[in-house]
Amino acid sequence: MLFHVAIEVRVPPDLDPERLAELRAAERVRSHDLQEAGTIRGIWRVVGRVASVGLWEAPDHETLHEAIASLPLFPYFDVTVTPLARHPNAPAD
Amino acid sequence: MLFHVAIEVRVPPDLDPERLAELRAAERVRSHDLQEAGTIRGIWRVVGRVASVGLWEAPDHETLHEAIASLPLFPYFDVTVTPLARHPNAPAD
Amino acid sequence: MLFHVAIEVRVPPDLDPERLAELRAAERVRSHDLQEAGTIRGIWRVVGRVASVGLWEAPDHETLHEAIASLPLFPYFDVTVTPLARHPNAPAD
Amino acid sequence: MLFHVAIEVRVPPDLDPERLAELRAAERVRSHDLQEAGTIRGIWRVVGRVASVGLWEAPDHETLHEAIASLPLFPYFDVTVTPLARHPNAPAD
Amino acid sequence: MLFHVAIEVRVPPDLDPERLAELRAAERVRSHDLQEAGTIRGIWRVVGRVASVGLWEAPDHETLHEAIASLPLFPYFDVTVTPLARHPNAPAD
Amino acid sequence: MLFHVAIEVRVPPDLDPERLAELRAAERVRSHDLQEAGTIRGIWRVVGRVASVGLWEAPDHETLHEAIASLPLFPYFDVTVTPLARHPNAPAD
Amino acid sequence: MLFHVAIEVRVPPDLDPERLAELRAAERVRSHDLQEAGTIRGIWRVVGRVASVGLWEAPDHETLHEAIASLPLFPYFDVTVTPLARHPNAPAD
Amino acid sequence: MLFHVAIEVRVPPDLDPERLAELRAAERVRSHDLQEAGTIRGIWRVVGRVASVGLWEAPDHETLHEAIASLPLFPYFDVTVTPLARHPNAPAD
Amino acid sequence: MLFHVAIEVRVPPDLDPERLAELRAAERVRSHDLQEAGTIRGIWRVVGRVASVGLWEAPDHETLHEAIASLPLFPYFDVTVTPLARHPNAPAD
Amino acid sequence: MLFHVAIEVRVPPDLDPERLAELRAAERVRSHDLQEAGTIRGIWRVVGRVASVGLWEAPDHETLHEAIASLPLFPYFDVTVTPLARHPNAPAD
Repeated sequence: MLFHVAIEVRVPPDLDPERLAELRAAERVRSHDLQEAGTIRGIWRVVGRVASVGLWEAPDHETLHEAIASLPLFPYFDVTVTPLARHPNAPAD
Repeated sequence: MLFHVAIEVRVPPDLDPERLAELRAAERVRSHDLQEAGTIRGIWRVVGRVASVGLWEAPDHETLHEAIASLPLFPYFDVTVTPLARHPNAPAD
Repeated sequence: MLFHVAIEVRVPPDLDPERLAELRAAERVRSHDLQEAGTIRGIWRVVGRVASVGLWEAPDHETLHEAIASLPLFPYFDVTVTPLARHPNAPAD
Repeated sequence: MLFHVAIEVRVPPDLDPERLAELRAAERVRSHDLQEAGTIRGIWRVVGRVASVGLWEAPDHETLHEAIASLPLFPYFDVTVTPLARHPNAPAD
Repeated sequence: MLFHVAIEVRVPPDLDPERLAELRAAERVRSHDLQEAGTIRGIWRVVGRVASVGLWEAPDHETLHEAIASLPLFPYFDVTVTPLARHPNAPAD
Repeated sequence: MLFHVAIEVRVPPDLDPERLAELRAAERVRSHDLQEAGTIRGIWRVVGRVASVGLWEAPDHETLHEAIASLPLFPYFDVTVTPLARHPNAPAD
Repeated sequence: MLFHVAIEVRVPPDLDPERLAELRAAERVRSHDLQEAGTIRGIWRVVGRVASVGLWEAPDHETLHEAIASLPLFPYFDVTVTPLARHPNAPAD
Repeated sequence: MLFHVAIEVRVPPDLDPERLAELRAAERVRSHDLQEAGTIRGIWRVVGRVASVGLWEAPDHETLHEAIASLPLFPYFDVTVTPLARHPNAPAD
Repeated sequence: MLFHVAIEVRVPPDLDPERLAELRAAERVRSHDLQEAGTIRGIWRVVGRVASVGLWEAPDHETLHEAIASLPLFPYFDVTVTPLARHPNAPAD
Repeated sequence: MLFHVAIEVRVPPDLDPERLAELRAAERVRSHDLQEAGTIRGIWRVVGRVASVGLWEAPDHETLHEAIASLPLFPYFDVTVTPLARHPNAPAD
């Protein structure tokens, strides 16, 4: 099933730069894993913000929640999940 | 360039059903045209709402505006366009 | 999978009373069907409002959207769907 | 009487991890007590957020407030309580 | 149990004046009944608005919802109900 | 004159517990004074929140502001004051 | 006592122009009366909107509400009243 | 002086098409006049919406308000005016 | 030209009391200067809040911005400026 | 392509003044670079706020995001980007 996942990242500007670099490196690794596993089917940067919108795929809600919460920057996230269905005007493929 | 286009459709419940059916049929045709042209790269139904989120591609803002405004249900739309960029954690493809 | 479905019903006060009575009777029948089918697992009235919150179960998003949109009062609905997962503090049952 | 209780938990990301673990363990115990006592009749995780929605039962408002405020993470909560009534379309059971 | 009930009344300015006068007279009668029955313990006009805040008392949520919905202007209402408890700093009376 | 005073109290969770206990004790004393003086005619806890709604009486706005600002927890308050008038449907008493 | 009164006027664009002209003329007369009586101490147009902010003076809330509701365009108003007190940095005059 | 003027145009979808065409033609003429007079220094379409943002110049607020209100579609506008000043990082020109 | 200036002051409750007293004394002096210069034509306390609404007069936007930013508590301000024009129903004086 | 870029700057009032001065000086240099490069085509101060609105030009979204994120005060920014198109009433130039 497909979900629209909007993530705002609110890292405090005074976070220790080394700690932030570590978190970002770990985030990158975990994000790649989720993309390779097909959980994150697409992810884009919202221009001008430390925010993303993504298309996520998961067999159930527990798996989706665990995937989002497994991202190292999760404690700084504000996440909005919206369930998506096939659009009536999209081709049946 | 890629855009996140969120559309809420607010058709009044007392719209003449025949008129609505015509509009929807025309909307379907125009939507297919935009999908075939690659302007709409993906479009999904927001579950429970007469609303969609879509990934739209356009070479410039005039083309994008004209594409959105060309949809027959446009007079009933409330549209929010958000520019998207490549995400730092997305593979370079 | 479980969803939290909040529905505000905005019937215009000048809707023909006979038409409204018909819609409400049909809504009642369809709602009972969805409850018997296990799609609506629980539904409650928000006190003081023509609104409900419900726990809905569906195998996928298309089925959920169709169930909500099948309710006769759907053209008057403003719906917010939130995916729910098992809570870490809820017993495993 | 039944209440819809929506809880957002806003633990600061720099809270001491040991303190947080203690709080969470105590929260779990207290939550189980409230579930066993029938005060929390159902509780679910909002996918992607440190938030829950729950169905709470209490004989009066003082008891409900004390139950919510007795949770160890209460100082980090943002709570919205909505009174629920039987829905006209729910079976009489 | 005590509830804070905030009511915004949105009567369309073009409502037939005779119909409005009838509705207001009936509203007045029903409001007095609810005050005499002790359901409305206090009600005040929000200055400058066709709106009220009230303290309502009801033994359960069904009774409260029926009382609010029994007001003849209910189809024009936007109602927010907030459960109230004894304040820790209020005297025990 | 009568005012509806809604107070949200936002004490940071890491405030020194002893300091908080002192503030709360002082708040209680001052609140009782204002109740005895008839400035606070009624005050209730919003269930689930560190918040109150109250009916305050004051001969003028300066007196009301000073009364609110005299509460020891005032630096942590977010206050909304709404002027109330007699409701047309309330008995003349 | 002094009040800040913000008024948005929402006249529907299809209101009969003659009716609108009558209402506006009557509004002008009533507004002048309230200014001469000292109830409206100052009133200004919000640039670009059919809206005003005003400083109103009234001995009590009933008088203020009646003054606002006596304006012929009141059925089209959305009004927000804020009580004002002397500012600590304003000269004592 | 420079102003940021954001205009949302809310023409009802059922407005008579001939009337709308007339209004739009008149709007175009008046807009050109204001651009030639230097009152509108720049105006852009918000992509996907019947909305504009503009940089307007006016010697005083009365002139600005009259200019905005002189547009034939003004009865359908929702306008937000924000005063702008030279930015400290803009060259002195 | 006249402006409506609404200021919310958000001083953190843990600001050093001596520092706060200094800032407030300096604020008072600067505010008096602006009042004597005719820049602040009127300023009032929003009852129950550390907030003010004021009528400010300035020959241009740069002067107004500098006046507001010259207040010692400016780093703690949240300011909303609204341009005001003569109201059509205000006497010509 | 043209973008409307609204930036709120939220520097905490307790930021070390020397650090702030450094950041502002660097911001000024980088802002001048972006203006000279034609990326920032216009930038204005929102009166009374540490905020700006700007007209930015960029060949694609990646370039725009990098330009905004290259500003030294970016960690303190809250940015809203809106794509702009030629307005139908603007001269073709």
